[in-house]
Amino acid sequence: MTNQEIFAHIDHTLLSPTATLMQIRTLCIEAIGYKTASVCIPPCYVKVAHKEFPELNICTVIGFPLGYQTLQAKLMETKQALADGANEIDMVINQTAVKNEDYDTVMHEIQEIKKVCGDHILKVIIETCNLTEDEKIMLCNCVSTAKADYIKTSTGCGSAGATKEDGVKVSAAAAEKIKAAGGIKTKADMEDFLGLGCDRLGTSSGVKILTAKKK
Amino acid sequence: MTNQEIFAHIDHTLLSPTATLMQIRTLCIEAIGYKTASVCIPPCYVKVAHKEFPELNICTVIGFPLGYQTLQAKLMETKQALADGANEIDMVINQTAVKNEDYDTVMHEIQEIKKVCGDHILKVIIETCNLTEDEKIMLCNCVSTAKADYIKTSTGCGSAGATKEDGVKVSAAAAEKIKAAGGIKTKADMEDFLGLGCDRLGTSSGVKILTAKKK
Repeated sequence: MTNQEIFAHIDHTLLSPTATLMQIRTLCIEAIGYKTASVCIPPCYVKVAHKEFPELNICTVIGFPLGYQTLQAKLMETKQALADGANEIDMVINQTAVKNEDYDTVMHEIQEIKKVCGDHILKVIIETCNLTEDEKIMLCNCVSTAKADYIKTSTGCGSAGATKEDGVKVSAAAAEKIKAAGGIKTKADMEDFLGLGCDRLGTSSGVKILTAKKK
Repeated sequence: MTNQEIFAHIDHTLLSPTATLMQIRTLCIEAIGYKTASVCIPPCYVKVAHKEFPELNICTVIGFPLGYQTLQAKLMETKQALADGANEIDMVINQTAVKNEDYDTVMHEIQEIKKVCGDHILKVIIETCNLTEDEKIMLCNCVSTAKADYIKTSTGCGSAGATKEDGVKVSAAAAEKIKAAGGIKTKADMEDFLGLGCDRLGTSSGVKILTAKKK
């Protein structure tokens, strides 16, 4: 695949808790220059990024990375993100509800957040490293039924990121588009995940990898 | 120190993203039995814990663990936690503002959250592992000026938890009480932090450590 084809699928990401405004500006400028699908940035930076780069597709994270906030808090966080100029929302599911086998709560939360999102893209992070195979299948069904737009494999903060096995399994089980995230560190990784049917790649190192000079 | 003296300073903690209701119930029962200072649990469990154990002092976490949510989202999360029955709030500061040297934003956020807390205890997590020595001193001043009740060293999710060096430095710089958290794994650790002037210890292993049978 050409670099440009790959860039078009990358959510160019900086979610460090200590990210500076200068780093966020650099990220945004790179995203525009390389025509990535979006930038994915902390909620507190959405407003300024939208103001400085109004043409940019901005993604932010909700309930990130642990997912166990109350629904009310997640809804408010989502409303604020959209009001600040976010175009896409990556939410973390309530993993505690999964472990309590309370899928009604998981689904209700996704549905309520999707209502707030309206036509904005909602990606649902299931954090596959914490899930059994059965739980992954159950969650694919929840995300489909709740009519979210993407399943996203990982926060990038867990014990592991996306695996190619998850890429296949989640792709097979889900009607939605897939975003693979976490630990995507080479061009081969990117091509593999895209080849497995993933539509978006969440990575902080896309520009670095794809623009590296060949030795 | 006696175990009972130590227990009285422990926030008995379970903040795993996959904590089950059964685990939270066990934590609450242990906290009552061993007379810990509080339980520290995810926001989504505050309501049920308060209903089932109304006598229990319940602490929860806001903006946890990365701290870069918008102020509006953090305020809503705090209001909801208090409405659900939380007695104490452990908030994470906006570390991005620290790195932008924007201490006005850091202080304003703490002040606004303290207003919502009223007489409820507010602990301010500064995540020392991400800070320079100068930043630690600046943040002690922010927390003092904003009239929060405690400085808390760490989320327990960062690259390191509380260090004894931080215990001393933070104690010396802060007018507030100190909560040491993250990586407290032995009775000697607990005695050391309390001896250094810390008033609370955040640990998930307090009961296990203090009730272990001597070999």
